[in-house]
Amino acid sequence: MEKINFASKFEQFDELWSPRVIAQMNNYEFKLVKIKDEFVWHRHDDTDEVFVVLKGVINIEFEDRTVELNRGEMLVVPKGEKHKPFAREEAQILLVEPKGVTNTGDVKSHLTAKNSQWI
Amino acid sequence: MEKINFASKFEQFDELWSPRVIAQMNNYEFKLVKIKDEFVWHRHDDTDEVFVVLKGVINIEFEDRTVELNRGEMLVVPKGEKHKPFAREEAQILLVEPKGVTNTGDVKSHLTAKNSQWI
Repeated sequence: MEKINFASKFEQFDELWSPRVIAQMNNYEFKLVKIKDEFVWHRHDDTDEVFVVLKGVINIEFEDRTVELNRGEMLVVPKGEKHKPFAREEAQILLVEPKGVTNTGDVKSHLTAKNSQWI
Repeated sequence: MEKINFASKFEQFDELWSPRVIAQMNNYEFKLVKIKDEFVWHRHDDTDEVFVVLKGVINIEFEDRTVELNRGEMLVVPKGEKHKPFAREEAQILLVEPKGVTNTGDVKSHLTAKNSQWI
């Protein structure tokens, strides 16, 4: 049971769109991600997904609209909802979702990351 | 599906030690809490509990040690672990835990808050 400092954890990796697990609560994981440019359209059929912006500005595109999230803002993407995150400048985010969720959901892509990369 | 701004939500209440629910992800709730001074010793027998500090400094006392958490830091308090949060100055935190968890866990106190107070 150690405390986790987000800034220190972000210093430990540079790879974009590649979630790093920093904590587990019950069967849920807390993951840090650095993002820039476009991700891929995808959905998670079995779970909601929480995005919290820790640094910068991100956008999450849905089929009918785009939500801009700034530092200090969060969004719950509902289960099954198709979405595509993007960021004009590099941004840092916290994801909360059940253990074992793959970043690209129902899609296989060159951006599909390995799960359970703990730092 | 609306985005949530932590600062705006914190403007909507002043009561200390009284969690306000701002989001639900699957069967988990995200709660904002303003805290100052001492809470009560308690434990949650059925769940881990996540503390994220959004403003100020908090301490979480355990039977054998005390963890200080600053803004940008988080801690997972393990299921069943007796703890007592406190803050010398008013601080703002985010809690993540399953829906329906009572703030004082196994203990009834004047600080026991009502659940599911959405803002």
